[in-house]
Amino acid sequence: MGFNILSSGSYLPVNQWSDREMDRFLKLPSGTCRNKFDVEYRHVADTKETAVYMAMQAITQCLANTHSLSSVNLLIYASGTHHQSLPYDASAVLAALDAPTSLESFDLNSTCLSFLSALNLAQNLFLAKRYQRILIVTSELATGITLNRSFTLKPEVATLFADGAAAFLLEQTENEGLLTSHFETHHAGYSFCQIKGGGSHINPHTSEHQAYLKNCQFEMEGKALFKHVRKTLPAFLEKGFCSSPVTLRDIDYFLPHQASAHGLKKLPSLVGLPKEKIVNHFSTLGNQVAASLPINLHWLRNQPGTQGKHVLLAGTAAGLSLGMGVLKL
Amino acid sequence: MGFNILSSGSYLPVNQWSDREMDRFLKLPSGTCRNKFDVEYRHVADTKETAVYMAMQAITQCLANTHSLSSVNLLIYASGTHHQSLPYDASAVLAALDAPTSLESFDLNSTCLSFLSALNLAQNLFLAKRYQRILIVTSELATGITLNRSFTLKPEVATLFADGAAAFLLEQTENEGLLTSHFETHHAGYSFCQIKGGGSHINPHTSEHQAYLKNCQFEMEGKALFKHVRKTLPAFLEKGFCSSPVTLRDIDYFLPHQASAHGLKKLPSLVGLPKEKIVNHFSTLGNQVAASLPINLHWLRNQPGTQGKHVLLAGTAAGLSLGMGVLKL
Repeated sequence: MGFNILSSGSYLPVNQWSDREMDRFLKLPSGTCRNKFDVEYRHVADTKETAVYMAMQAITQCLANTHSLSSVNLLIYASGTHHQSLPYDASAVLAALDAPTSLESFDLNSTCLSFLSALNLAQNLFLAKRYQRILIVTSELATGITLNRSFTLKPEVATLFADGAAAFLLEQTENEGLLTSHFETHHAGYSFCQIKGGGSHINPHTSEHQAYLKNCQFEMEGKALFKHVRKTLPAFLEKGFCSSPVTLRDIDYFLPHQASAHGLKKLPSLVGLPKEKIVNHFSTLGNQVAASLPINLHWLRNQPGTQGKHVLLAGTAAGLSLGMGVLKL
Repeated sequence: MGFNILSSGSYLPVNQWSDREMDRFLKLPSGTCRNKFDVEYRHVADTKETAVYMAMQAITQCLANTHSLSSVNLLIYASGTHHQSLPYDASAVLAALDAPTSLESFDLNSTCLSFLSALNLAQNLFLAKRYQRILIVTSELATGITLNRSFTLKPEVATLFADGAAAFLLEQTENEGLLTSHFETHHAGYSFCQIKGGGSHINPHTSEHQAYLKNCQFEMEGKALFKHVRKTLPAFLEKGFCSSPVTLRDIDYFLPHQASAHGLKKLPSLVGLPKEKIVNHFSTLGNQVAASLPINLHWLRNQPGTQGKHVLLAGTAAGLSLGMGVLKL
C-alpha cells in the first residue's frame, strides 16, 4: 500500500537575476558570482509573486483541468518559510484558489525537508487507509530577505537562494509509494542556520527597529554545517537503506536538496555515487529551501526515460535535520 | 488500532494579570474586564518564558522522570504561533532539552486546531504501524502582540488571549485512540482573524516601520466569525459523528477550543448539550490559541472519575477551519 503520483506542477518567478547583475548588486568583480558561487541566474519573485500566488500557480499546473480540488481529501502546505503569521498558509492557498470544497488542510514545516516530510506523512496516511488523494504544495519566497537592497549579506549567502513552488497530487494505490524513508534531528546543529525574527521570540513591538531588522536576516555557519553533514550523512543513508527493498546500487538518480554549490560538488565522493546520477541544477535554480526537492522532482519525472526509475531524495535542513526517501518514478 | 495517552503535562506562565490590572491597562472603568469580557485573570509570559521554554517545561512535566525522550520516535510541535522564522520550532525544543536522541521531528500548524490535527495525525501514523511513541507539544505565546504597551488593541481582543503550553505522550496500542474525527477548511472565513506580518508577505526590510508594526497586530472580525460558526458547526459535528461508534448522547464532556466568552456561552444551545458537560475555563485561562485544547485536556484527565469517559474535542481555527475528535479518557 502506498501512492501513485497522479500529476505535478511547478512555478518559477518570471524575473531572473543574471550572475552579472548579482556581481553588480554585491559590488563584486565581474565573473565572481559565476565562478565562485556557481550562479548562472536566480529566479527572484516580484511583488505580485507572493508565496501564496506561486503555490496557486503550481497547483493550477498540477491539476491542469484534469483533476479537481473536489477530489482531494487533504492539502498539506509543506514549506520552510511562512507567508504570514496567521492564519496558516494552506488556508490562504485554498482562499486564493477559491476552492470549491471544504477539504482538510494544515501546514507542515521541517525547513528544507518539509516536502520530503510531507511525502512520508502522505505515505503513512495512505497506509492507514484514511485518505484517497492528498495534495502537497511547497512554496518558498526566500530572496525578500537575502537579496534585499536595505543591507548587504555575505555574498555566499546572497547568491544561495532563489524562489519557486511545486505541487504534487498523490493517490492511494497498491503501489509502493516511498520504498524506504528515514529522518533524524541533530539538534547540536540548531544554530548553524537561523532567522531569529518573525515569531514570538523577538517581538517587533518591543524591539529597537534596526536590531529587529538584523534579527530578520539569514545567519549561517556554513563551514560547521558542512562539517556536520560530511560526518553524519553516510551513516544516516546507510540506516535509511537498512530495512529497504532496494540498495544504494539500485538508485538511478540521486536528487539531493540543492543546499549549496560546495555541498553538491562534494556529494559524489561522500555518498559513493557517480556525478552523472546526481541531479544538480544549482547554477540556474539555486537553493529554493523546501521547494528544491519537488521542483527538481517535477523536472525529473518529465524527462524522457525516467519512468520506473529509482530516485533517492535526501538532504539536510536547518534544525539540523537529515531526511531520505526512495521513490520509483 | 490506536493509542493510549501514556502521560501529559502543562505549563502556565507564573505571572498573572488580574481583571483589575487589565482594566487599568486598557483604561476601562473598574470591573469591565470581569463583567464584560469574563476575565478573572490571564497568564502572561515574562521574557524568560519563551514559547520554547514553556514547551520544554510541559514536556519535562509530561515525561516526569518516568518516560525518556529516547523512547520517542517522533516529536510534533503543533502550534498556531511560531517561536522564530527558521529553523522549525520542534528542533528548537529538542535543542533546549538537549535531547539524548536524534528522533524525527516537524512542526504542524492549523492555528487553534494544531493540537487536534496532530492528535488525528498520530492516530493515523499508529494505524500505519510506523511509530511506537509520538510526543505532541503545543506552546503559544500570544500576549506579546495582544498585551503590548506600544499600542492599544480593542479591549475585546486584548482580553482574549493568554499564554501556555502542554505536552502529550502517546503510545500505539490496540485501543481505539480517537473514536472519530473530522476536519474542514472554510476559506470563505480566511480574513476573519489575521496577523499579516511575520512572514514573506510583508517584508520588514522594505516596509515603513509603523506600517510594519500595524501588520504585526491581531485583527479580528468577531461578529462575522461567530456568525459563520453558528451557521456551520451543528452540521459539521453531525458529519463528524456520522461514521462514529459513539453518538453525541454518549459524550460525557465537551471540551471546546476556548475561543471567546461569547462563543462558549452560546455553545450549549448550539450543539444541544447541557452546560455542565462543557469545559469552560475562559475566565482564568482565556484563549491560549492551540494550547487551549491540550491544557484543558490535561486538566480533565487529572480530575477524579474521568477515566473511561468520552470527551468530544472540537473547535474552530483561523483559516477558517473546523475540527472535531472523540477520545475515551
